[in-house]
Amino acid sequence: MTACIGIIGAGLIGRAWAIVFARSGMSVCLYDVDASALGQVRDGIRQSLQDLLQADLIEDIEAPLSLIQTENDLAHAMRGVEYVQECGPEDIDAKRRIYSELESVVAIDTVLASSTSGIAASRFTNHLKHPERCLVAHPVNPPYLIPLVEVAPSPDTSEAAVNRTMQLMEQAQQTPILVRKEVQGFILNRLQGALLNEALRLFRDGYVSAEDLDKTVKHGLGLRWSFMGPFETIDLNAPNGVVDYGQRYGPLYRDVDRQRSDDDPWDTATLAALGQERRSQLPSEGLAERQAWRDRRLMALMAHQRHIDTK
Amino acid sequence: MTACIGIIGAGLIGRAWAIVFARSGMSVCLYDVDASALGQVRDGIRQSLQDLLQADLIEDIEAPLSLIQTENDLAHAMRGVEYVQECGPEDIDAKRRIYSELESVVAIDTVLASSTSGIAASRFTNHLKHPERCLVAHPVNPPYLIPLVEVAPSPDTSEAAVNRTMQLMEQAQQTPILVRKEVQGFILNRLQGALLNEALRLFRDGYVSAEDLDKTVKHGLGLRWSFMGPFETIDLNAPNGVVDYGQRYGPLYRDVDRQRSDDDPWDTATLAALGQERRSQLPSEGLAERQAWRDRRLMALMAHQRHIDTK
Repeated sequence: MTACIGIIGAGLIGRAWAIVFARSGMSVCLYDVDASALGQVRDGIRQSLQDLLQADLIEDIEAPLSLIQTENDLAHAMRGVEYVQECGPEDIDAKRRIYSELESVVAIDTVLASSTSGIAASRFTNHLKHPERCLVAHPVNPPYLIPLVEVAPSPDTSEAAVNRTMQLMEQAQQTPILVRKEVQGFILNRLQGALLNEALRLFRDGYVSAEDLDKTVKHGLGLRWSFMGPFETIDLNAPNGVVDYGQRYGPLYRDVDRQRSDDDPWDTATLAALGQERRSQLPSEGLAERQAWRDRRLMALMAHQRHIDTK
Repeated sequence: MTACIGIIGAGLIGRAWAIVFARSGMSVCLYDVDASALGQVRDGIRQSLQDLLQADLIEDIEAPLSLIQTENDLAHAMRGVEYVQECGPEDIDAKRRIYSELESVVAIDTVLASSTSGIAASRFTNHLKHPERCLVAHPVNPPYLIPLVEVAPSPDTSEAAVNRTMQLMEQAQQTPILVRKEVQGFILNRLQGALLNEALRLFRDGYVSAEDLDKTVKHGLGLRWSFMGPFETIDLNAPNGVVDYGQRYGPLYRDVDRQRSDDDPWDTATLAALGQERRSQLPSEGLAERQAWRDRRLMALMAHQRHIDTK
């Protein structure tokens, strides 16, 4: 028997999750408190499925579509559901209310997973009778194109809930990783933040243009990271592996770490200057088209990786 | 008339540069003080060219091979050369000696570019009569697979030398970026260092395994960076572009920045633990084979990107 999945919130992330589960043959019930939000859900999902079909990433549209239902009554929506993916607002009080309501309508062992990109699970589940089945399952947007999911339990979360979530994500062809202890921003956004903080300072202090900084990553640093990650990259970049690498290059990176200033790289003036350079390269009215381009590039990259892996 | 290029040092980087210039039709003279090092140069280059041919990245082996000469007499090697790519040891004193010798055998306007990955140009050229034609042109290894080149002038470098180097790199199908002011580690290694420093701390402090950290990048963060770079990525990740993004997520990244501890992430114990996990995934005797796998994956990725760009 395949899993039955409940999704809370029919915004962009909720709809993307519906595609993830349904394309792997799971039944999905997509709930939103706002009935009008549910009206156009099916059209949006159909369009995304068509894009995936065109990129050779799925074989059929009708089968996954037939597995997705929408519902605006919470108790109806959660009937028989064994895993809930919550995609509510990024607000602790709103989430606490949602989890209280959820607890009253689901079975005692239903896993409740949040898509939050920043809030630790304990902050919106420590008031529940059964916080042990709650955790974070943080996707990258959109999860049907980017497989990584950060599974981040709270101190209360049971091993069973963690294992069930990891298994389910693998069944859904996602790539789950385990965040072993609660930490703000989890792993992905902490790594992104570390690089962005340095990037903004280099841009702000006049060492490099925004365009050249992007080139440094897309034509340099980002190529190996797209199939190896940073630790394997350095492990293969010294004759005797990563310890050898650390002895050679550790002093340089230690200096970079110490030279880092304490000022705020996200100040208004820096953002305005970056915005100005970006808008001179890509006017505001071109953003939507470029986002569609990004998704096509991502789909082509995923198709390329799938082709390579099966060779 | 095509450019005539001199290369100092017939190690891995020097040989890789020879391939870069020769595949674009430029004549290359590869110099090494050690005549025995030159013996196997041609076989190594032929092998790399064969790999590129197999990956559909070049059309012919013999034409580039015929453009590469080797020489162990510096004055002979540098005759008629208009651009020198120096690939000597990463040692300031050694480089200062090399540049003094070079100055005595090349024309007054020959550009002298260093492949150094860490040393600012002023530190090994400020004793010369003509430091204005000296700069750094830092490649990523190997440059015939990864196109980025960091062009980093010293305060003495002339605009003409910078422009000549940028043009030459474009002719050679590389992607040059300009580092506007001297800075340790230039741009690429400062960005890599910022991410690695955070990655090592997350690993050391038990938040994540090394394997899961690599997955976070290769199945998440690194995918978009491989064709967009970090600034364009965030510019497309908020409805109204990068300023909007900064208002939404700046507070999170600012917190990440403030939470960063001052301890050394490259300490012996952390490196040993990372080495242990890496070696349990990939024993030492498998490193060379995995490096060959990495190069095949890189070649396939470059072929994929070329295919996409011409569509």
